[in-house]
Amino acid sequence: MDKNAEQSKQVFDSSDSGRNSRPLPFAQHVTFDGPFHLECGGRLPSVTVAYETFGKLNAQADNAVLICHAISGDSHVARHHEDDDPGWWDIAVGPGKSIDTDRYFVICPNVLGGCRGTTGPISINPETGQPYGPDFPLITIDDIVNLQRRLVDHLGIVKLRAVVGGSLGGQMALDWATRYPDRMAGTAAIATSPRLTSQALAFDVVGRNAILQDPDYLGGRYYGQWPGPRVGLAIARMLGHITYLSREAMMQKFDSDRLRPREVATQFETKFSVGSYLAYQGDRFGERFDANSYVTLSMAMDLFDLGGTPETLQQSLQVTQCDWLVVSYTSDWLFPPFQSQMIVDALLACNKRVSYCNVESSCGHDAFLLPDELASYGTLISGFLANLDGVSQENPLPDSTPKPTSIFHDPHRLDYSSIAELIPEGSSVLDLGCGNGGLLSLLRDRGQGRLVGIELDEQCVVNCVRCGLNVVQADLNEGLSSYADGQFDLVVLSQTLQTVIDVKTVISEMLRVGRRAIVSFPNLGYYKLRSELAEHGRAPLVALGGGTRWYDTHNVRFLTLADFDEFCREQGITIHKHVCLDTETNRRITDDPNRNADLAIVVISR
Amino acid sequence: MDKNAEQSKQVFDSSDSGRNSRPLPFAQHVTFDGPFHLECGGRLPSVTVAYETFGKLNAQADNAVLICHAISGDSHVARHHEDDDPGWWDIAVGPGKSIDTDRYFVICPNVLGGCRGTTGPISINPETGQPYGPDFPLITIDDIVNLQRRLVDHLGIVKLRAVVGGSLGGQMALDWATRYPDRMAGTAAIATSPRLTSQALAFDVVGRNAILQDPDYLGGRYYGQWPGPRVGLAIARMLGHITYLSREAMMQKFDSDRLRPREVATQFETKFSVGSYLAYQGDRFGERFDANSYVTLSMAMDLFDLGGTPETLQQSLQVTQCDWLVVSYTSDWLFPPFQSQMIVDALLACNKRVSYCNVESSCGHDAFLLPDELASYGTLISGFLANLDGVSQENPLPDSTPKPTSIFHDPHRLDYSSIAELIPEGSSVLDLGCGNGGLLSLLRDRGQGRLVGIELDEQCVVNCVRCGLNVVQADLNEGLSSYADGQFDLVVLSQTLQTVIDVKTVISEMLRVGRRAIVSFPNLGYYKLRSELAEHGRAPLVALGGGTRWYDTHNVRFLTLADFDEFCREQGITIHKHVCLDTETNRRITDDPNRNADLAIVVISR
Repeated sequence: MDKNAEQSKQVFDSSDSGRNSRPLPFAQHVTFDGPFHLECGGRLPSVTVAYETFGKLNAQADNAVLICHAISGDSHVARHHEDDDPGWWDIAVGPGKSIDTDRYFVICPNVLGGCRGTTGPISINPETGQPYGPDFPLITIDDIVNLQRRLVDHLGIVKLRAVVGGSLGGQMALDWATRYPDRMAGTAAIATSPRLTSQALAFDVVGRNAILQDPDYLGGRYYGQWPGPRVGLAIARMLGHITYLSREAMMQKFDSDRLRPREVATQFETKFSVGSYLAYQGDRFGERFDANSYVTLSMAMDLFDLGGTPETLQQSLQVTQCDWLVVSYTSDWLFPPFQSQMIVDALLACNKRVSYCNVESSCGHDAFLLPDELASYGTLISGFLANLDGVSQENPLPDSTPKPTSIFHDPHRLDYSSIAELIPEGSSVLDLGCGNGGLLSLLRDRGQGRLVGIELDEQCVVNCVRCGLNVVQADLNEGLSSYADGQFDLVVLSQTLQTVIDVKTVISEMLRVGRRAIVSFPNLGYYKLRSELAEHGRAPLVALGGGTRWYDTHNVRFLTLADFDEFCREQGITIHKHVCLDTETNRRITDDPNRNADLAIVVISR
Repeated sequence: MDKNAEQSKQVFDSSDSGRNSRPLPFAQHVTFDGPFHLECGGRLPSVTVAYETFGKLNAQADNAVLICHAISGDSHVARHHEDDDPGWWDIAVGPGKSIDTDRYFVICPNVLGGCRGTTGPISINPETGQPYGPDFPLITIDDIVNLQRRLVDHLGIVKLRAVVGGSLGGQMALDWATRYPDRMAGTAAIATSPRLTSQALAFDVVGRNAILQDPDYLGGRYYGQWPGPRVGLAIARMLGHITYLSREAMMQKFDSDRLRPREVATQFETKFSVGSYLAYQGDRFGERFDANSYVTLSMAMDLFDLGGTPETLQQSLQVTQCDWLVVSYTSDWLFPPFQSQMIVDALLACNKRVSYCNVESSCGHDAFLLPDELASYGTLISGFLANLDGVSQENPLPDSTPKPTSIFHDPHRLDYSSIAELIPEGSSVLDLGCGNGGLLSLLRDRGQGRLVGIELDEQCVVNCVRCGLNVVQADLNEGLSSYADGQFDLVVLSQTLQTVIDVKTVISEMLRVGRRAIVSFPNLGYYKLRSELAEHGRAPLVALGGGTRWYDTHNVRFLTLADFDEFCREQGITIHKHVCLDTETNRRITDDPNRNADLAIVVISR
């Protein structure tokens, strides 16, 4: 079995291993008496929560991080000591890890409706002395979160540092922020969605059909009746596993030995290696998970709906007060990146503080549980948590390597200070192509208003988040549709215009979103560039170098200051100011700038 | 129900509608006696084929087109008269349609192992007088095709015009070409794959598990035992339907009325609209399809394996002799486009004649059955069939609108004739960015050797296929890895270099695949362009126009002839010849071409 399969096995076995029906040794329990009323009208006479904690609550009680688990998870998110069973997110939670239990007091409760200690269908109904079974009421994510909130109250925590969750747990995190907006400084929503796609919903429907139509389901009263709906639950779990992996990950795992299945004792088909994997996963799940819990929790997931349109999503998220970190994974097709982008777009439209990264990964939905991309998403989480107190601990990394978009000798962004001078203090600024956040940091140090960066490069996004800057990973060529008209005082495009394919749309969007825009770009009219072509017959950009040549530069648009001015005239764009620089000597140029300046900075508006 | 849902309903109902257990009225039957030996060792005492034919076999018996159906299809591919039930591919097959029954004699047999007239598990075993049921032997695509071949023999057809199939039917088409290479002029493999991805395989495994573990399956001896494995078969079919649709298509169908299901009488969950759709499809399938057939055919599909690597695929396809058309659909995730590209790559590596198009579609795997993209894939099929006699009926469309890659006044590709003159007669030529095939047609008219075009634009690909040119849809920036070293005498990149992002890789690949390469590009050193920048301070490309400006040109690379020469020197590339043109006056330039020519044509080799 290859490395990835091993990893996955480990991940999925981590919450299975050995302790299937044993109580979790570190779980604490608290019972809330009196009826617990549910969103859909049901009630539970009392509720018990099983939870584990890690690290210490500080004296101010402001270092608590709540972690919400996914559908088959439990309270055992990490090991408590070296000999303890690993937790389901051991790679991310522990001393010195992304969620650092030396700094934070981590709380992880088993969810309502689950089967690992918190009240669920398998629990005894105190009013009947029998397990609830099919009589367990319909619950929603709201109900799950409501119970978590009672636990947080019980622990004496008024405001959480953050709520963190992936997948179904991410939906809980979203729900927390909308239901209890003053109860957390930050929310990290990972590999999740405002509501399932119809495709993801369809898989859940088929899984439930398989369980409910299993003759051994016995209408849900199968406790003590061997074997219970093991076949139906296994079918549902097999489907789950297909959707947790990407096609690429499945190819890596199974393509080379397609017809050499692992030997597993099972009633299911094992002709193909992928079949033996599914059979194994299906069988194991039946040993440790309760079918009624699966039906209950998958239905709660399916009913979760923060909105399917930008408008409805904005309505839902408008009330939130926290800082946000949203993370998706490129190959996740169960909670696909576009849904995270919808969340981010809605938050941006509501002027919320949000950072977003679509982490490059071939691991599919499972990526958030696997070590492969931990360097990115783990750093995003730790950086996000570290900056929630509002004091950035990190200075931005310099743009120390020549930016591929620069044609200039000096790799340092000489135009930053010139641009900053053009921005009135207190202005809100959107910086397009913000890199490692050099300009944004400069503005923040000046005490600017709302600052947001957009950047395509994943590592730059991670670097910005570490510095406490709000940055959203996006491709400028796809527009700024998530922003409202006039949402920012200024939109800046610093030395990025020449790499933009769809110039007209980007400029037009800048002028829609910003009351003014600042564009800086290399001026092809600079006399040294002119003479390179005129006298030497060479593509001008080769001359001044910056390490790139005509055949490998990231620049795809070549324009002079005069070209840009004409463009503005034609498009009805008002030019308020030119700042023209000779960056070799760092001088402002006023005499024939189209000939004497190598860098143009232009302030425009519609 | 929206338009797409209607369409889909129609498609899936077309083979269901009303005639569920009735014999197909136009099906003919032929029985072959004597044992029919199967690839995996089994045997059938005799086999019957149910098939339908459309149109007339001509006197030469060379106009027969065999159509292979997908897993749940049957022989009724099209209606026989106006009042007849529509066939499963009525949109594509009939008088004047893509597969024109006025021109071709169309044969569509029900497949071996099916349940619509051809011998399958539901048929009576003559040796026992009982249905085969679970005793029906394991069959493969080879066995299915072997029986089809006997039918073709029986009909007196030595050589088919073409074998056409989509999905499982596409695998049959692939198998035909490899098993009986001299029996067809052409093969059209649509929305198919050389072997299933592990992901697609996984869905089949889960489907079979659901059927075989259904207690009503009764070990496969459920005939006459109500209800049979209806639940398991429905679960399998629900999964099938999820995989036939793309995520986008599901969103279009179900997102707007997510919680407003259609009213259907069913035992399955109908809380969500997508659930009611799946319940309906699952139930209907059980009424018309035999579970043992589904298990038999899905296993045959899963066992099909032409190779999972370029090498093994080439070994499989090396023996084929026909012309090829390969079509995939961008949103098909069950038989994803990369698998069609693997087939095409292997065919190209074997010097087979192949055209390929990855049709833009949001319809998923179903796209090949739906009218949405018929204008593309239908025209590809009809053009492919029409040109299989080796005589092109169509002249290429002129590049009448200015190509976005051209900066020149004259939209006609003046360099074609100059390039053609540089190519020795009989040479094999690969034309990168071939457009509507202008250069390739010119070369074909001169009696050139093997000619292949590569083009990104779908409509251009369709136009080329209509003219009988072999063209492969691909992005040059992704390289030419499917071609062997020195596979072509000449590789041509005509006025496309300036739109290529990764110049170094493309040139290097050209020189690997071709013994020589010809590159033509606009020369930025042309005196009018120089003066535009030097004297007027304007981006030179604005001046000469061609309808594009600095901000909307498709050109992203700007170079002079001198730049290109230096590039060649640095890369160790030998320059054999320059042909430099002033395209305004259509003159050859020998005096200072870097100043006086606006178009450079360079012959190079490694």
